[in-house]
Amino acid sequence: MSSNLEVLKLSVFGESHGRAIGFTLEGLPEGKKVSEAAVQAFVDRRKSRGGYATARREADEVEFLSGLKNGYTTGAPVCAVILNSDARSADYNKLKDTPRPSHCDYAAMQKYGEWCDLAGSGHFSGRLTAPLCAAGGVAAEILKDSGIRAAAYIAELGGIPLSSYRNGVPSLTDVVEAHNSELPILCEEKREELIRLLDQARAEGDSLGGVVELVAYHVPVGLGGPLYEGLEGRLASMFFAIPAVKGVEFGDGLHISALKGSEANDAFRYEDGKVVTATNRSGGINGGISNGMEITARIAFRPTPSIAKPQKTVNLTSCTDTEIRIKGRHDSCIVPRAVVCTEAAASLIILDAMMENASRRI
Amino acid sequence: MSSNLEVLKLSVFGESHGRAIGFTLEGLPEGKKVSEAAVQAFVDRRKSRGGYATARREADEVEFLSGLKNGYTTGAPVCAVILNSDARSADYNKLKDTPRPSHCDYAAMQKYGEWCDLAGSGHFSGRLTAPLCAAGGVAAEILKDSGIRAAAYIAELGGIPLSSYRNGVPSLTDVVEAHNSELPILCEEKREELIRLLDQARAEGDSLGGVVELVAYHVPVGLGGPLYEGLEGRLASMFFAIPAVKGVEFGDGLHISALKGSEANDAFRYEDGKVVTATNRSGGINGGISNGMEITARIAFRPTPSIAKPQKTVNLTSCTDTEIRIKGRHDSCIVPRAVVCTEAAASLIILDAMMENASRRI
Amino acid sequence: MSSNLEVLKLSVFGESHGRAIGFTLEGLPEGKKVSEAAVQAFVDRRKSRGGYATARREADEVEFLSGLKNGYTTGAPVCAVILNSDARSADYNKLKDTPRPSHCDYAAMQKYGEWCDLAGSGHFSGRLTAPLCAAGGVAAEILKDSGIRAAAYIAELGGIPLSSYRNGVPSLTDVVEAHNSELPILCEEKREELIRLLDQARAEGDSLGGVVELVAYHVPVGLGGPLYEGLEGRLASMFFAIPAVKGVEFGDGLHISALKGSEANDAFRYEDGKVVTATNRSGGINGGISNGMEITARIAFRPTPSIAKPQKTVNLTSCTDTEIRIKGRHDSCIVPRAVVCTEAAASLIILDAMMENASRRI
Amino acid sequence: MSSNLEVLKLSVFGESHGRAIGFTLEGLPEGKKVSEAAVQAFVDRRKSRGGYATARREADEVEFLSGLKNGYTTGAPVCAVILNSDARSADYNKLKDTPRPSHCDYAAMQKYGEWCDLAGSGHFSGRLTAPLCAAGGVAAEILKDSGIRAAAYIAELGGIPLSSYRNGVPSLTDVVEAHNSELPILCEEKREELIRLLDQARAEGDSLGGVVELVAYHVPVGLGGPLYEGLEGRLASMFFAIPAVKGVEFGDGLHISALKGSEANDAFRYEDGKVVTATNRSGGINGGISNGMEITARIAFRPTPSIAKPQKTVNLTSCTDTEIRIKGRHDSCIVPRAVVCTEAAASLIILDAMMENASRRI
Repeated sequence: MSSNLEVLKLSVFGESHGRAIGFTLEGLPEGKKVSEAAVQAFVDRRKSRGGYATARREADEVEFLSGLKNGYTTGAPVCAVILNSDARSADYNKLKDTPRPSHCDYAAMQKYGEWCDLAGSGHFSGRLTAPLCAAGGVAAEILKDSGIRAAAYIAELGGIPLSSYRNGVPSLTDVVEAHNSELPILCEEKREELIRLLDQARAEGDSLGGVVELVAYHVPVGLGGPLYEGLEGRLASMFFAIPAVKGVEFGDGLHISALKGSEANDAFRYEDGKVVTATNRSGGINGGISNGMEITARIAFRPTPSIAKPQKTVNLTSCTDTEIRIKGRHDSCIVPRAVVCTEAAASLIILDAMMENASRRI
Repeated sequence: MSSNLEVLKLSVFGESHGRAIGFTLEGLPEGKKVSEAAVQAFVDRRKSRGGYATARREADEVEFLSGLKNGYTTGAPVCAVILNSDARSADYNKLKDTPRPSHCDYAAMQKYGEWCDLAGSGHFSGRLTAPLCAAGGVAAEILKDSGIRAAAYIAELGGIPLSSYRNGVPSLTDVVEAHNSELPILCEEKREELIRLLDQARAEGDSLGGVVELVAYHVPVGLGGPLYEGLEGRLASMFFAIPAVKGVEFGDGLHISALKGSEANDAFRYEDGKVVTATNRSGGINGGISNGMEITARIAFRPTPSIAKPQKTVNLTSCTDTEIRIKGRHDSCIVPRAVVCTEAAASLIILDAMMENASRRI
Repeated sequence: MSSNLEVLKLSVFGESHGRAIGFTLEGLPEGKKVSEAAVQAFVDRRKSRGGYATARREADEVEFLSGLKNGYTTGAPVCAVILNSDARSADYNKLKDTPRPSHCDYAAMQKYGEWCDLAGSGHFSGRLTAPLCAAGGVAAEILKDSGIRAAAYIAELGGIPLSSYRNGVPSLTDVVEAHNSELPILCEEKREELIRLLDQARAEGDSLGGVVELVAYHVPVGLGGPLYEGLEGRLASMFFAIPAVKGVEFGDGLHISALKGSEANDAFRYEDGKVVTATNRSGGINGGISNGMEITARIAFRPTPSIAKPQKTVNLTSCTDTEIRIKGRHDSCIVPRAVVCTEAAASLIILDAMMENASRRI
Repeated sequence: MSSNLEVLKLSVFGESHGRAIGFTLEGLPEGKKVSEAAVQAFVDRRKSRGGYATARREADEVEFLSGLKNGYTTGAPVCAVILNSDARSADYNKLKDTPRPSHCDYAAMQKYGEWCDLAGSGHFSGRLTAPLCAAGGVAAEILKDSGIRAAAYIAELGGIPLSSYRNGVPSLTDVVEAHNSELPILCEEKREELIRLLDQARAEGDSLGGVVELVAYHVPVGLGGPLYEGLEGRLASMFFAIPAVKGVEFGDGLHISALKGSEANDAFRYEDGKVVTATNRSGGINGGISNGMEITARIAFRPTPSIAKPQKTVNLTSCTDTEIRIKGRHDSCIVPRAVVCTEAAASLIILDAMMENASRRI
């Protein structure tokens, strides 16, 4: 039940083939403008688009049940639901005996036993990122008031490196513009190659992974804290809540380990009367606390484990090795849809950290 | 105050130059053998050793105040303290005006104002990993009962790649043996080169980073859960609680993003009547839940920001750019001492996840 | 956002005149039988019945959205909603300026400002006890497995003392039988008098309070803990979550304060090979931990503050003293409907305490 | 591990006959004046005084280990310890087989098994209220800044009713003055009678209970929230954390249940331009939220179960009924010492509720 939130309390509920998925979010400040249309548009950004995404089509209409009045938060818990419509459980029935490699099936059955609802991957489904995005969309709306914006894009796809903040933090405008396309990238010249790659993967019944970069703009200095209060750990724990994430790094991340301190340190200097750092290898976080620079993070997504190619697995009833061919409608690459999920995750954590700071001002 | 623990409740307290540092840990099961000597030996592994570590010498004697009786947990909260002795605050007094680049100083002062106790980096000091290790040492003792063991080693230092689980998970015996040396590595042939590198960094007043690999052996299948209950997020949030960590990845981590699903998936098969995976690119975790294989993680540490070389910074009183030369006694490389910290972090999370699972068996 | 649950995580959401009210409950054990019909029947017990209850008629159909499959818990979060239908906000519009005495209006507006949704008392409405009962009904279903049952009845109404556990703990059978009537009491001979009293209060536009007694049968010994882990504090915090509760006592409660230790202590003795106490003045809890006897508690409800009689209040716009006559449909006595709410509250806490104990058995 | 705190995180640790008892408190605001001498004086108020208290004499010196600098909070966790000195475990050794009636022994052994440290009642001992008072003393110091003060006195002792807020809320001055005596009461004329009663109880090897009344002065309007966020539930859960508490009521509490709404409601009116209530039967809390009036609560303490008189109990080894005579040094009435404990409990909850409100002001 963990979610590493301090002041806010988030519950994401629902199963892929159940009646509805949704979230409740408690502890939100009252009187904050939250446009339901803006949240819907935010959630819409994770919809399946393009040939490489699942053929399952869901309206994913976010219906707010509580906590908002006339477009403002009331201070009471916000609950929103998204009804499931296009569920075809039959597709999944055979998987119980033959767990899909690298998927949740085997581990989940070991934890929850036969009781686990794994139709469409149940509560483990990527569909659950829809309510996560809805909750994050509410947080993002509230952060707008303070001018804070978490925005992400694809920095690597199928092994092809794309434009990255490591070569200069992109402008918010550029990132937002990238969101208009199915493939939110910052280097247009690679688009065709990527689409070819995605088409090929789909044709082969295979899948691709990638890396999303998240930049949080205009984050105030002073959010987070030492040790387990650190902003990196809190952000990471929410990023890892997005299925398929296998690595999270901040700033120069794993690369910084190879540098010397004199190369890695970000010198302070004054710019227009404000303290800034000359470089931002730290990703905007020092000692677990935001330093006023952009927060930058890289979130690595594995290729989705549901592929059409035959795979080796076991039959848990006969206790023999066997093969599986996964049917159903799967994304051959979830990275484009995951971009907005990272923004949702970051927005929730940043809002929570701001509220924690505010709690000290009595 | 976050720590992403579900059933356990951990508080780490103290400042580098205060009277004592320590931890309280609530919720531990009763009747578990915890050898105080074993916990002390565990904590001793993070002591400064070798020429590249801080000249500050602390006994770091862990004194248990509560929760243990005759070597067993009583079920009541465990508190232990470590008295500070060798503190020299004068070394740090000038830093207030001129924050050290990439250190906590600036961000912490922005959060806590003048009230923050930054002598020796205060509550942000690497010294606070001593109580973290003590708490983790208690968890590790309890896990021994179930045969579970989290063990780590250095997989990269100063940019030099060393033996890694990516080329085959090492045996627990080999990892434990590596702990006997100052530099716990698995490829003896690189030791001399590393020591030369460390000596050089120290001589230059510079610092080095590195990557620690953590392998958790004999973790039962079924720990963790979907979304924010995922074992990766919970482990990561505790790894990031260790100062200087800038990246965390599981299994093949960021590399897996470049693979196709057919390459990345870990095929299931039977081995001696037990379900195993042919490869372990997932790092022992599928769908946020342990799958019975070794849990493998890479934790990237930045070079410590406290270096002797002159650095550019600002003077916050005169609001001008300036230079700083950090005095004091600093590690030129904290990676060797951080190895045990990652084991502590992992042990706490694994124990907590086991207890959460047990809570369901009513 | 507090709820004093350790292992479970409960969110109750919704407003009286919003689209829906409901709850999410995370952390439930998997594989536990939960009959939706039984939960519905449980919730139905709080429906307005009899002339003394609100004229508002709601179907209060509990619709489960997640976490159950074929009548068993899956281990994933349970969410259920109850749609609002019979809401008439116009009744409440004038109250904003003139807060109802002893009602939430004034205090809530001071906390949440104009943003607060107070139509029908919003998130403060007694209607929110419907999802509380639904959540508690799920817990009660799970406790059935272990033979545990929390059952309540009215022990005092409008100042008239009724049959109380203080004169002997009633049998579960008797308490359950009492639930068949609108007025769940254990002394039939007082029924007519009470109904006259209730009719009179309603006729006068006034309201009545009362005391509910909760008996938890077959609670295993060993639940709870010392200090803030104590079962009394945890139960009390959930009882006080029911609107209108102003006092909670266990066993002999406030009366025990007037006794000597030699009178108040419950002597232990063996009965059929089992340790029992000769009396149960402690209410089944010693040192914060259940001792195996029935847990007994008295929960005092104030008369509902919404009365038809004219009352003195203030006009917050003109800053003058004024009078108010509350219209709308109100219960003249909520005690009969509150009985099941106390069972819900107790069931949630007992289940949580059982899970906390189970977490220690690794 | 529950403590029903939202923003703060409290751990109380230690055993009666262990090395030390203490607390850690995380999340405190930085820059708040906390006089260690004032906290010590606060804790000193619970010391055994008078002939009716335990003969055990402890210095109870509160030693702060972290979180304070030059008399101000730093924003880092505060830990303080109190060393045990005058422990005589031999007194308790025989109790293991023959649990003391209405004491923690039997229930605790059932929960924790043989591992439980029950020497001097271990973690269940009334001694643990010393660190609770120390933590509450820190909170009380911080509340001083805002002019808030929780102050308590004895309102009933050994069944003798004393001056109560029910007949008019006493002035803070009067309550504070009462703290100067061993028996903090507000009706001097009863003092002799009470002392006779206490002497008699002690002489008879018996014990007495009583009721403490807590008044929180100058609490701002708007603290708390609906349902499980309610201030009553949060306060009650902390009051019940004090050993021997068996009942908690607010305002007119259980008495209000016998009134009609028209009698029970507190009419609003303007006084010096401020909204007040004509009466305060609600105890300063409406809808779970403070309404700006004094918060008033009655906390009922049972007579302490440790009495010298012979009592019936069981022998758990031989499984037979037997008798016990408790030796050791026990209070014959803990109510006078408990007064300050209720202030500590209330201060912690009020500070936490203020911080939760502040968290909303981003």
